Order: sequence, then structure tokens, then C-alpha cells
Amino acid sequence: MTTPVTAKPLAPGSTLGIVGGGQLGRMIALAAANYGLKVHVFAPDADSPAFDVAAAATCAAYDDGEALTRFAQSVEAITYEFENIPRETADLLARHAPLHPSADALSTTQDRLSEKSFINGLGIPTAPFRQVDTPDDLARALDAIGLPAVLKTRRFGYDGKGQRIIRTAAEGDRNAIFAEFGGAPLILEGFVPFECEVSVVAARGQDGSFAAFDLCQNEHRDHILALTQVPVPGLAPETAEAAVEIARRIAEALDYVGVLAVEMFLVRDEAGERLIVNEIAPRVHNSGHWTIEGALTSQFAQHVRAVCGWPLGEAARTGGLAVEMRNLIGREAGDWQAILAEPGAHLHLYGKGEARAGRKMGHVTRLLPRAD
Amino acid sequence: MTTPVTAKPLAPGSTLGIVGGGQLGRMIALAAANYGLKVHVFAPDADSPAFDVAAAATCAAYDDGEALTRFAQSVEAITYEFENIPRETADLLARHAPLHPSADALSTTQDRLSEKSFINGLGIPTAPFRQVDTPDDLARALDAIGLPAVLKTRRFGYDGKGQRIIRTAAEGDRNAIFAEFGGAPLILEGFVPFECEVSVVAARGQDGSFAAFDLCQNEHRDHILALTQVPVPGLAPETAEAAVEIARRIAEALDYVGVLAVEMFLVRDEAGERLIVNEIAPRVHNSGHWTIEGALTSQFAQHVRAVCGWPLGEAARTGGLAVEMRNLIGREAGDWQAILAEPGAHLHLYGKGEARAGRKMGHVTRLLPRAD
Repeated sequence: MTTPVTAKPLAPGSTLGIVGGGQLGRMIALAAANYGLKVHVFAPDADSPAFDVAAAATCAAYDDGEALTRFAQSVEAITYEFENIPRETADLLARHAPLHPSADALSTTQDRLSEKSFINGLGIPTAPFRQVDTPDDLARALDAIGLPAVLKTRRFGYDGKGQRIIRTAAEGDRNAIFAEFGGAPLILEGFVPFECEVSVVAARGQDGSFAAFDLCQNEHRDHILALTQVPVPGLAPETAEAAVEIARRIAEALDYVGVLAVEMFLVRDEAGERLIVNEIAPRVHNSGHWTIEGALTSQFAQHVRAVCGWPLGEAARTGGLAVEMRNLIGREAGDWQAILAEPGAHLHLYGKGEARAGRKMGHVTRLLPRAD
Repeated sequence: MTTPVTAKPLAPGSTLGIVGGGQLGRMIALAAANYGLKVHVFAPDADSPAFDVAAAATCAAYDDGEALTRFAQSVEAITYEFENIPRETADLLARHAPLHPSADALSTTQDRLSEKSFINGLGIPTAPFRQVDTPDDLARALDAIGLPAVLKTRRFGYDGKGQRIIRTAAEGDRNAIFAEFGGAPLILEGFVPFECEVSVVAARGQDGSFAAFDLCQNEHRDHILALTQVPVPGLAPETAEAAVEIARRIAEALDYVGVLAVEMFLVRDEAGERLIVNEIAPRVHNSGHWTIEGALTSQFAQHVRAVCGWPLGEAARTGGLAVEMRNLIGREAGDWQAILAEPGAHLHLYGKGEARAGRKMGHVTRLLPRAD
């Protein structure tokens, strides 16, 4: 059993540990620096963009117990940008410094099966799903759920990695499909005929306070977020309220501290508008990048406030403007000069070396007069 | 003779060198990181707050030629947060990498005598002044300028350091007053009966483009900036335009690249409103901190754009709101928890260790509905 260290408000000048060194960690680090905190980043990749803005850096593997212990002992609180760290790593860290979000919240949300079971347990709908540990499980799950369906690894998936749509019964036999995943624990999910994907990015403080940013609509391309728009065009106000209420109930049930994102499918049919939760990200989220310019408190500042035990900031949208955030994927970042020259465009680049296909290199946020 | 290196637009991923490691360097570094740049900070103090957010740091004296050379050779462009670096240092740096603002601009503005002569040479008014190199000079200068007057060191003054008001003829003899300054080159300036102090923070790009933030009004306490307000209450629009025009002419005459601040006295008398230039700061400026939330482009982002050879960003105020920025000096930073809990307050802390009296520890910016 672990005995988590109890958190108290961090004083400015303290060091915040961040596990994970990508753009999310980098932007958390920049927000922390604005509040006078020092940052220590732990990440396995020597090229981690967050190292460049951190007062201290540890480059080691997520299962390097000695390095993790030294890291955790050098900081006053710990958070992470990345939910795919092992539960054991989270437990080890929490023995030395307050860890937010907690190892339990991480563990519940990093496995698609426990995550969906948890969400359904709150009476919140998800797509139908079945656990798949054998080819026979897959055959039974397909019978139960029908086609099309999506087979996914239970853990460690992101940006469409570790998943495959099964559209027709003729798509190859169950053994072959099961084998493609190399024996990893799987989940089969029913395909939701959604109108669009939306997300709530919200924060819960150590005092139980809750603040949600405005609901946003997300468009993906090749399974990677391409565009986030706020507000969601044509949405019924009750649907937006319901989305925030779902996020609040999830955050409370997890006794969550920090920023989280709840991705949902918006379904419109004869019964009207309704929301189906797709997944929970226990961290700051790409669909919240618009808050840097578009909200009174950015998701990164909000996350720092929460994990430090500080009061949450205002999450309202800046000046009632509409906001759109486009990711700059791979070679799209080559447009940086045009974006810099565009009035009203806010360019963010992450300091990554090589603009590989599918790699998130930066994003651009535009504040627009409201259409509605 | 130095042959300055010619500048070309910096690509993201390049390294920007920053000379000086205080809060200004730190905030330039944060803005540079947002654009995907790496930062190398050169500063003599091991506790420099900018070191904590820089990819590389050199802790060495401003006259350490070897360290300066290594630093300059490791970066693609150089700027500074601090005008009190020696001319020789600037010349050395400029031999290895593009330096902005230029050594000439630095040299003109870091000496109060050359600065005021330069400004008057453009037909722009300053307080009357006289060079003072001897006690006899001081006696003659006092006769010419009258009382009250302000005796200042020509170089290396800031926040009221290195100056003294002479109010009455009975204040001690000229030899004693002169001796207080230890033989440093001095300037005597006439006292301007001003209504308030205002400043223009503006930027000039490498392409000659110019963009000014809105004129702001500044209140000092114990010679240290306490409060900046935008817009200036009750100001005639032509006066605001004249202030920006003064800044533009100064920037053009200096062939300036980067952000500069022009501090002015606003005088109101029977002849109406007029402006008297007090001094030029060849760098980002405390009276421009409000732009982080209050303008479409912050002064730090704008400075990075200019020194990188990128197009300038929009300098307009966000959403037509009024803005006030208060410095948190010394123990005032102890109010951080109350400020974090205050709706609409944007807290910035600089990561400095000890809250000594007179030390700028942070600032808070508030966006307000406009009064006018």
C-alpha cells in the first residue's frame, strides 16, 4: 500500500515536477514559470521540448526507480503531461511528493475498460463495449455489439494508434485480427453514429472547486486533432450544460485534482441531441490550447493552480469572442512565416526538431467575432 | 571598427541569446519559447531568474571576453534586457551574431548626455540639461538651469539610483555635492513641473515597420514604477498621437530594431498639453508589462519578433478594455494568494528568492471595463 503525501499550497519559488517532456509539459512549465515556480521535468527522451524551459531536467526511463526517487525528492509537487506512465511509477512518485492527478485517477482513466466501466457506473452513457482477451472473446463481442465496431488496445493508445475499425464481417478472421495486436488486452467498442466530437476541458481544485472552459468542437484528420472551435456551432444550451455536468461528475467521482478533458460524441437523432462519452484524458489536452488566448485563465495556468493547491482561475471566454485552434502537424509548421504575418493569428511552436508526418509541431489560435 | 553581422530571419529552433538574467530576460525567454526558439541567457549572477527558463545559461561577467565570445558563437541572434552593459561588450557580441538593438543605439541611450543631445537634435524637447564634470561645472549649470534641479550620473542609473534633487541654494556646497557621486560623469537636469509621467512602448522591425502600444500613464513610488494605467485618463487624442510620433522618430533615427520605451513628462499649462521626453530605454520596459494580457501581442513577443527579423504583431489593446498593471515590490509579493483568488487579476511572479525592499518581485495586471 502506498501512503500518498498530503498536499498543501505550494509557495512561489517551489519546484513543480512534471513527468513527460512533450509540448504539454512544455506549456505547463511556461505557465508555472509565470507564477514564479521552478520546474523539474522528467522524461525519457533527451530531445524533450520541455527540457528547454525547465530549471532542472532528468532524462531517464519511466521505470527507472532510482531516477524517479531522486526526481520526486527534489520537488515539492508532481504532475504529469502524459497518462501512459505505469501505475507503479505513479505510486512511487506519490510516496515522496504530492502527485496530482492521483495514481487512482490515472489508473482508472489509462485503461479503456476500467474507464468505460467507471463512466457507466456513474450512469453516464458510453459506446457499448466488451472486454476482448482472446479471439473467442472477439467473436462474441462482435456478435453482441454488431458492425461497424472499433477494436482498441486497452492501454497506451493515442492519436489513433492501437486501434482498428472492423466494418464488415468479411474483413478477415478473428484470429488474424486478434493477432495484429500482439496479444495486448483489447476492448471492442460499438461505433457511435455521431454528428461531431466535442470536449469539455475543466479543472478541479484541491478544495473541490470546479471550473469548466466552454465546450468545444473537435475535428480530427487521420485520427489526430486538426481543429478545435469554440463555441460549438448550433448547440442547444442545455446540451452544453449537460456536457459540463458530465465532466463535473466524473471529476468528483475521481476526486480529481488538475485539468482533465472529457471527449464526447454529440449524437443528433429523432430523440434530439445527446452526449456519449468517448474518453477521459487525465491531463491538459490539445482541445484546450485555445484557452491560452481565448479564456481568462489558460488550461496550463489552471492546471498549475490546481496541482499547487491554489484557487482556480476564471474559465470564461475572453471578451465573448469565438475561437478556433488549428494544430500544425508535420510540414504544416512550415507555414510559420505566413502565420506570423497574419493579423490576429497567435502562433505557438513547440521547439521540436524534425517535422515528421503526424507530429504535432505547433498550433495557431485565432480569435474571431462571434457568429452566433 | 566592428563589422556587425547582418541579420536574416531566424528559423524556429534557432537559439536566441539574451544578455541579462532578470525578470525582463525571463519574460523575453518565455515569449521566445512560445515561438519554438531556444534561449541562451548570459548573466553575471548565479541566481538570475531567467536561467530557470533557458535551454542554456552562461554565468559570467559582462567583461569576460572569452565567455562572451563562446556565448555569442553558440546563438543565432542576440538581444539584451539591460542597457547598462558596456559598449565594448556589445561590439564584441555583434562581431559574432546579429545584435539587436544595435551597439550604436545602446551607446546613444545609455548615457544621459548623449541621449538628451540626440533627442534635442531631432527637435524633440527634453528638460534643460548641462554636462557636469567638475564642481565648477555644477555651479555654472545651477546658474543656467535654476532650482530645483536634478543631478544624475550620466550612466548606469536606474530606479532612482545615481540621482539627487537639489531644491535650494542652501543645500550644501557644490564641492560636497559633486563629491557624493565619487567623480562619475554627471548631468544636471532642470526640474520639469509635470502633471504626470507617460510612456510609449513601441517596436521597430528589421524591415523598418513600426508598431506602438497604447500610451500609458506611470506612477512611481520611491523612484520605482508602482502603477501603469492604459489608457491615460483625460488625454487629448492629439497628445497621444504626438507621443507615438515622438517614439517613431526616435526609433527611426536610431535605426532601432526591437522594443523600446520612451518615457515622457506630460505638462499641462496655459499653452495646453505638451510632452517632454525624459529618457529612452533601449529594451522591453516595466511600463509595457500590461501588454501580456492587455494587447494582442505582448511587448516580449513583439521584441522577439523584431530581433528575429519577423513581422511585427498587432499592438492594439485587447477588446477595448482599460488595463492597469501594479508592480509587486518587496513584501507586496506576499499578497500572491489574495491576488490568485481575485477574479480578473493576472498574477506574474519572477521566481526571485528574497523579497528585499525595493526589489521587483512580480506584477499583477487587471483588465477593467473602460471608464472613457
